[in-house]
Amino acid sequence: MSDPAPVTMSATLAADDALARRRLAGEQVLSLASGEVGLPVLPVLRERLAAAADRNAYGPVAGSPELRSAAAGYWRRRGLDTDPELVVCGPGSKPLLFALVLAIGGDVVVPVPSWVSYPAQARLAGARVIPVPGRPGEGGVPDPALLRAAVGRARSAGLNPRCVVVTLPDNPTGTVATPATVRELARAARELDLVVVSDEIYCDLVFDPADRAFSPAVFAPERTVVTTGLTKNLALGGWRTGVARLPDSPLGLGLWARLVGAASQIWSSVAAPVQAAAAYAFEEPPEVVAYVAAAKRLHEVVARAVARRFTAAGATLAPVRATCYLYPDFEPLRDRLARVHQVGNGRELAELLAERHGVGLLPGSAFGEDERSLRIRAATSRLYGETDAERSEALSAPDPLRLPWIGACLDHITRTLAHLVSDQSPSSLGALS
Amino acid sequence: MSDPAPVTMSATLAADDALARRRLAGEQVLSLASGEVGLPVLPVLRERLAAAADRNAYGPVAGSPELRSAAAGYWRRRGLDTDPELVVCGPGSKPLLFALVLAIGGDVVVPVPSWVSYPAQARLAGARVIPVPGRPGEGGVPDPALLRAAVGRARSAGLNPRCVVVTLPDNPTGTVATPATVRELARAARELDLVVVSDEIYCDLVFDPADRAFSPAVFAPERTVVTTGLTKNLALGGWRTGVARLPDSPLGLGLWARLVGAASQIWSSVAAPVQAAAAYAFEEPPEVVAYVAAAKRLHEVVARAVARRFTAAGATLAPVRATCYLYPDFEPLRDRLARVHQVGNGRELAELLAERHGVGLLPGSAFGEDERSLRIRAATSRLYGETDAERSEALSAPDPLRLPWIGACLDHITRTLAHLVSDQSPSSLGALS
Repeated sequence: MSDPAPVTMSATLAADDALARRRLAGEQVLSLASGEVGLPVLPVLRERLAAAADRNAYGPVAGSPELRSAAAGYWRRRGLDTDPELVVCGPGSKPLLFALVLAIGGDVVVPVPSWVSYPAQARLAGARVIPVPGRPGEGGVPDPALLRAAVGRARSAGLNPRCVVVTLPDNPTGTVATPATVRELARAARELDLVVVSDEIYCDLVFDPADRAFSPAVFAPERTVVTTGLTKNLALGGWRTGVARLPDSPLGLGLWARLVGAASQIWSSVAAPVQAAAAYAFEEPPEVVAYVAAAKRLHEVVARAVARRFTAAGATLAPVRATCYLYPDFEPLRDRLARVHQVGNGRELAELLAERHGVGLLPGSAFGEDERSLRIRAATSRLYGETDAERSEALSAPDPLRLPWIGACLDHITRTLAHLVSDQSPSSLGALS
Repeated sequence: MSDPAPVTMSATLAADDALARRRLAGEQVLSLASGEVGLPVLPVLRERLAAAADRNAYGPVAGSPELRSAAAGYWRRRGLDTDPELVVCGPGSKPLLFALVLAIGGDVVVPVPSWVSYPAQARLAGARVIPVPGRPGEGGVPDPALLRAAVGRARSAGLNPRCVVVTLPDNPTGTVATPATVRELARAARELDLVVVSDEIYCDLVFDPADRAFSPAVFAPERTVVTTGLTKNLALGGWRTGVARLPDSPLGLGLWARLVGAASQIWSSVAAPVQAAAAYAFEEPPEVVAYVAAAKRLHEVVARAVARRFTAAGATLAPVRATCYLYPDFEPLRDRLARVHQVGNGRELAELLAERHGVGLLPGSAFGEDERSLRIRAATSRLYGETDAERSEALSAPDPLRLPWIGACLDHITRTLAHLVSDQSPSSLGALS
């Protein structure tokens, strides 16, 4: 390694930090930038963590037998028979994804658009990134035909693509690739001899059961690694725990050893008290199931309400099917945005919304889109309240949109978009609340 | 990245896993392999963790303001003025050390012998490893004269050494480099334009205040990164938390941004409930200070008792000054070990001790010694009991060596060494208890 590794700060975490500073400075800010889920910890999980506060041993690198067994059960209930011995835990699914890139080796195919950290992690690991667009309305999965072409070109050019990352359901688009597309992707991966790394952290947050995501592990079981965690469905991002399910195949066994080796050198094990609580959560007792159902409903109601406002303002948006992300495209407003606001791309649009309106969003370019794109990603998972009391009320409210604090957020968005699409330049409007 | 990264399982964690399996199979085993500290969690820290079980936000990548401020105070009390803004937290000091290698870039100088994970982490990060022996009796710090020569040779050969790792006090030798040596090392690092990464996780476990370790941050403040954690002094390995202190210099500020960038892509943040408890611990209230003092005394009494047994058996050993590690050299017994046991190196010696006597140790080769070396590393930090009750009693006992469970461990070691140095081959002794 003669040059320093290319290091970029996570765009979502950086945007979060910037908004937190502005809030501290007294500004009224609305964070739609990071996908952190602003909901309280389920009480029984708090109790489990507290009860495990005396656990201070490292335990096995791959995770406690209880946690691995519970994670295997979680996948089994979703149709993926899983050997607990092939489960590996990590301090978040993010470190697992990073260690997988190291363990698999070679270069990495990522969908466009896709989560900010896939390419950043690959570069940090010394890999090259091969971006491949998805099919319209089916984010998270590279178009299989384009994948074949891109991998062929990459190999001809001396690159060594060895894995393809998919996100099911998808961040940033909030869409779900169809089973047919996933099946085709799996077939292409097999023909191209690629490992599929399937990030399924949003799999419990599909709004309509008919849109359920199918894992590539169903279609290419011998080569698909699945990752998930408790960050999204149980709002436990700050607890840092994730799990990976490795294929039950010679490839999978070899990869398991390399992944656990990398884990042993990078993080040793996951915080033991967190493992105890996570094991309980992955067993999915009724109160956990009820919490995830309530959270999913809240995500859906609020995401759809925000989506309607984007659409009303003239942005285009694929039907929202899952997660708490919206990915509106302001292309239809390009001329007006340029004329009135001197905005010509997503970055400038995000800057305008942050600086003039206190609304934090990320431009599509953070997710791999062309710099000129007027797409932005809005995460609606932080609109549920500022306190645990407000957030708990949001989780159980019959009509969350009528809660004053959520209503105020929606009004903030409505006002912001109204100004954005008006013909008056912001300078003539004066300071906006 | 055309070839898969070289991945090796952590030798200490692998040895631990193997011993745990043998114990499960009913064998009487004595774990001297990993440096995990077998002591209970201080009750007030358990309570702090439990009280923070409702914290589920990621928080800043670098760590909560409370934790960074507490860590800065910890270093200030040890003579290192520290800006909390230059502190970065991680899920253990191990991930911080890995991310530092990535953030610094280039190739890495490590002392010989040194902790198993420094070279493994460097290779995983794509760096090359430049091993440099320390001075006799002063483990953990490359001999400054040899460092100059090795870096010169490496640069001539096209390598790009950019940092040197030191361990103060040292694992595996249990020794402490003198202030004069540390000062020379710091001067050499400055001349050679190397960043010093100073792993000071054992700094509170020096037995005699006169042997106190001096940080290279005293002598080369502009280029020294210090790491530490709660794993060793408070037995909190399984909680996974560590902190790094970056230099207050242009180099340090640049490195801070790169380290936080790498952290944002690899682990996001440290488990929030753990951060709350760690902040309290780094404030060092009286009960924390008392615990560390009691643990240090216990480490000293037990390590010295085991050291006497190695010396009595004929192994040589540098005076034990810190940590809970012994690094005896069986070189004086080479002929006898070869004749009676067909043992010609440290690996064979460790295998014999594990297989015939149930004693888990690591060979010096795991720490970078020549394969032929008859050095082994013994960690004595797991001899304090099997239950929290026994371990608590060990922590407060006026004479820990008279506790039956510690006495039994010492007897196990005495018997093992007696058989090892006897002239009777093990096969003629039959099964040993």
